Amino acid sequence: MSEIPNVEDVQKLLSRGPYHQWLGLKVVAVGDGTIELTATSREEWVANPDRGFIHGGILATLVDLTADWALVSRTGRGVPTIDIRVDYHRGAVPGVLAARGQVVHFGRQFSVAEAKVFDKEGRLLASGRGTYLTTPPT
Amino acid sequence: MSEIPNVEDVQKLLSRGPYHQWLGLKVVAVGDGTIELTATSREEWVANPDRGFIHGGILATLVDLTADWALVSRTGRGVPTIDIRVDYHRGAVPGVLAARGQVVHFGRQFSVAEAKVFDKEGRLLASGRGTYLTTPPT
Amino acid sequence: MSEIPNVEDVQKLLSRGPYHQWLGLKVVAVGDGTIELTATSREEWVANPDRGFIHGGILATLVDLTADWALVSRTGRGVPTIDIRVDYHRGAVPGVLAARGQVVHFGRQFSVAEAKVFDKEGRLLASGRGTYLTTPPT
Amino acid sequence: MSEIPNVEDVQKLLSRGPYHQWLGLKVVAVGDGTIELTATSREEWVANPDRGFIHGGILATLVDLTADWALVSRTGRGVPTIDIRVDYHRGAVPGVLAARGQVVHFGRQFSVAEAKVFDKEGRLLASGRGTYLTTPPT
Repeated sequence: MSEIPNVEDVQKLLSRGPYHQWLGLKVVAVGDGTIELTATSREEWVANPDRGFIHGGILATLVDLTADWALVSRTGRGVPTIDIRVDYHRGAVPGVLAARGQVVHFGRQFSVAEAKVFDKEGRLLASGRGTYLTTPPT
Repeated sequence: MSEIPNVEDVQKLLSRGPYHQWLGLKVVAVGDGTIELTATSREEWVANPDRGFIHGGILATLVDLTADWALVSRTGRGVPTIDIRVDYHRGAVPGVLAARGQVVHFGRQFSVAEAKVFDKEGRLLASGRGTYLTTPPT
Repeated sequence: MSEIPNVEDVQKLLSRGPYHQWLGLKVVAVGDGTIELTATSREEWVANPDRGFIHGGILATLVDLTADWALVSRTGRGVPTIDIRVDYHRGAVPGVLAARGQVVHFGRQFSVAEAKVFDKEGRLLASGRGTYLTTPPT
Repeated sequence: MSEIPNVEDVQKLLSRGPYHQWLGLKVVAVGDGTIELTATSREEWVANPDRGFIHGGILATLVDLTADWALVSRTGRGVPTIDIRVDYHRGAVPGVLAARGQVVHFGRQFSVAEAKVFDKEGRLLASGRGTYLTTPPT
């Protein structure tokens, strides 16, 4: 059984990606098959100037990457996404978003993990799951 | 039967969204239940500096919005996404991406549309489908 | 807030469907936004005579209907499925299958619920989620 | 490039599965990355005796297996499903159902294929896509 990586190490790995930096991701906690992180919204994230909601593509991105990094206690790194499903539950207004991910099934070739994205009042904005390629890189 | 909106009008509507502007979207063609558009990659889109691939979240966003706007000949506007599924087929290197969307089923309350994203050599990078809320706004 | 329906009443509603009868569904527990049920496999469920695994279509059906009926404490009935996603985790051998469902988000027009299917050793066979139409029938 | 298998051979392979027999599947045509088949509804397929609609689980099964067998010109056999997404478009009344599948992307480890299910009037009842394990068996 591998040790759970610490928050700082996961933050460092996650922040290597320019898109992750742009999303302002902060790793809050890492557990066995779980992760918690936050993102802070940017002006560019807005879908529509009338209503001011955050674009669904940003929420899909957060679901994807949070589910992916929920696997980090087993994979030690971010892994390729095979496919994702994202459900939108409520319009998201700009601010700090919190995301929690957890492994559904860890497999040899591919694994399934899920994630939920919340606003700062703890309301569920979006949720989903993805299939990730967890074979060791060759 | 409603008239198909022209490219300029759809471009104007689409470009009202700050995130759509940031994605550099250009509407290429609009048909009856179809759309073609392009996006030009930005430095921020990169997932991982070693391999240089575009983040899956960007591809998911393109699948979502292209499927959504494939409905524009019926809806006359962008509509809320209920849920999406996105499949990743090949690592995407930075450059101009082309996306084509088409309606699968137009319904009264909600509709299904699909989209494919290609690189400039015409290789399929990602594809998917979503369910969209197509009831008239109240 | 509506009362949680009792197991016998939900069993009666669920068993009105010929396909549900054929699946041998037994309701085990009903909670606020949750359900537990079992199904007993039939010879016809086998996908392939060499390996003897249960067909994925049966597991998809169990995920769908279990997520659907997890909504029963709010809906009082089975509701139309808009779309589903199902992940397969392990080959399922014939026997009693247990399924647990729970609501992810209850909305006015449509709601999301998820379900997991286990074998009698408690191993996760399949899981998934669906979007359900929860507007009152007109 | 492998030869396209003939309809009789695919029918024989497909019909080895008891569940496929129960579904009354008939292979109509096999092409390069495509398949067409039919299924004839049974009394057990009904979801609800009041409205008489076919259960969504049956339609999900048809989407899954049709997408799977659309891969047969490359795989030479049915392959394990990793995950599926199914959208429901219209209530399905009992009768002969037609299903058409086609490959979206053929990959080394896993592939994506899609399928549509129609009634005998050619109306689209359900559609969807799945990810399939297409590595050669070890």
